[in-house]
Amino acid sequence: MNKIKNDLFLKALKGESVDRPPVWMMRQAGRYLPEFMAIREKYDFFTRCQTPELAAEITVQPIRRYGMDAAILFSDILVIPQAMNIEVEMKPGLGPWLPNPIRSKKDVDATIVPDIHETLGYVMDAIKLTKEMLNDEIPLIGFAGSPWTILCYCVQGQGSKTFDKAKEFCFTNPVAAHTMLQKITDTTIAYLKEKVKSGVNAVQVFDSWGGMLSPKDYQEFSWQYINQIIEALKDDAPVIAFGKGCWFALGEMAKSNASALGVDWTITPQMARKLTGHKITLQGNFDPVRLLSPPSEIKTMVKQMIDAFGKDKYIVNLGHGILPHIPLENAGAFIEAVKEYKQ
Amino acid sequence: MNKIKNDLFLKALKGESVDRPPVWMMRQAGRYLPEFMAIREKYDFFTRCQTPELAAEITVQPIRRYGMDAAILFSDILVIPQAMNIEVEMKPGLGPWLPNPIRSKKDVDATIVPDIHETLGYVMDAIKLTKEMLNDEIPLIGFAGSPWTILCYCVQGQGSKTFDKAKEFCFTNPVAAHTMLQKITDTTIAYLKEKVKSGVNAVQVFDSWGGMLSPKDYQEFSWQYINQIIEALKDDAPVIAFGKGCWFALGEMAKSNASALGVDWTITPQMARKLTGHKITLQGNFDPVRLLSPPSEIKTMVKQMIDAFGKDKYIVNLGHGILPHIPLENAGAFIEAVKEYKQ
Repeated sequence: MNKIKNDLFLKALKGESVDRPPVWMMRQAGRYLPEFMAIREKYDFFTRCQTPELAAEITVQPIRRYGMDAAILFSDILVIPQAMNIEVEMKPGLGPWLPNPIRSKKDVDATIVPDIHETLGYVMDAIKLTKEMLNDEIPLIGFAGSPWTILCYCVQGQGSKTFDKAKEFCFTNPVAAHTMLQKITDTTIAYLKEKVKSGVNAVQVFDSWGGMLSPKDYQEFSWQYINQIIEALKDDAPVIAFGKGCWFALGEMAKSNASALGVDWTITPQMARKLTGHKITLQGNFDPVRLLSPPSEIKTMVKQMIDAFGKDKYIVNLGHGILPHIPLENAGAFIEAVKEYKQ
Repeated sequence: MNKIKNDLFLKALKGESVDRPPVWMMRQAGRYLPEFMAIREKYDFFTRCQTPELAAEITVQPIRRYGMDAAILFSDILVIPQAMNIEVEMKPGLGPWLPNPIRSKKDVDATIVPDIHETLGYVMDAIKLTKEMLNDEIPLIGFAGSPWTILCYCVQGQGSKTFDKAKEFCFTNPVAAHTMLQKITDTTIAYLKEKVKSGVNAVQVFDSWGGMLSPKDYQEFSWQYINQIIEALKDDAPVIAFGKGCWFALGEMAKSNASALGVDWTITPQMARKLTGHKITLQGNFDPVRLLSPPSEIKTMVKQMIDAFGKDKYIVNLGHGILPHIPLENAGAFIEAVKEYKQ
């Protein structure tokens, strides 16, 4: 693998000292960008994911405009259940829609651990193309959903405030639930390993719905599977584990071989450092809605956030994905504040 | 006020030692009960709230069936915006719907701090009737939404996963937001004081959406108003403050004059005790979806939960409202486990 010119992000993942922390934004290739909306008008969701030229172009769009310190491949966490033989649709206005949700052992048995090249080769092609376009200027991140978060959609069949059907499945049919979680884990490990082989420089596991579980249930139904992924990937590439609402597990997560942990905005930087023993690199945690504050306020808040986390072992990011209606100037102020950072 | 025969709940609120902790369930008067469904088929939502005979009957239904240690008056947090001159509808399948949400200073100025007797007299009548029916066997709890949670609905206009419009209003129009929060606070204080005069033995403030805010924004837009309510009510009745997802504020909340703090299931009892300095009475925190586990498992988990919180300075409850599809036997197992509790 070639040397990356701007290696701030990779240095932060290794815990090396930097002049300023690196910055990227979850969902930085997204609907707040007019150039993304132009592509979105012409091509539907799965066409964008499955056409390497489109996925690569979308991935580099925010880099061209703002010059973040890392790119993240445009894709979706639900390509995994799709590859496992579960039908996944995107309904405009509603989001993910799985017409035949997993509700029994029989449903679990009907899913497969797929051949990655056969089912997700288009992702690998998109990575190779993106790497060419990035020209080793900055690192490229690949990602996957956590097994628990994928299970949430597979069982619930759609987005939810509580994912109560997914939890009900785990609590009333734990054997089938664990079989399914293991199948998702095996698929995800093979998928992420292929992504690294294809050129991504780091991977992030998104546990968007881990925060719906009690600390004990989180260990049983989410963390043990994320940790399997970390253990399987640790010699291939740095792994970032992001659990939205999972502050309660940070102590356990910090003991793992993850290179960094993502945190959301409901925890202070001080508390996040304390719960993780001040050792591991942290990533986050600006409230995405706070990007609606005036740009000058955004800059002040970003400066305060970096001061609180400390410039080292820290990756500046939002606490969740950027929202569709964020003004371009405000997103720019967020990135600029990091680049202008001085202690 | 007459002496209450079963005073476990009141003792726990005072921090006095008890043989076993008291138990009640948030939303215990709700859709999982067939006797509630029978009333629901005949009368719409606001008729149930506004007819004292119906509200009182619904309030005592779960007590008759299970014998909880406290009743909570059947009502809704949205009677407050309604009384403040904001139109509130309940749409079947969607939930609360406010056709003219608050989006500007002008909208805020159009709201009123109402005369409680004129607008919410029906609640006081329901309390008096319920007290007669309860016959001083157990205490009666009155409740209100936190000003922030009420504002969430007033601005968003409906339920939401993120309440991003409510947050946007606070972040881009803080002066109008604070004016509105203060008007809600003033109304809520007058409302809860009247409730106590009418006979409730304790009040609970529900901050259902405080967990959407960063720790700093929580102090500014939620906690300071809850604390005003606590200060205004502390000499009238014990106040329980429940903030879903507000673990990060527990240290600050424990310093207040609240008699107890509610916690949700995403925090361990040990951590909740630690963050609150082992002093204040805590209430919670069984995962509502865990009531779908087999009854024998529920009983084991309840026993473990009481052991972990400790029997004193503790009120057994769920971490949020009971779900509509919980089997009657399972809800019963939860209550029984507490009554059978021995260290």
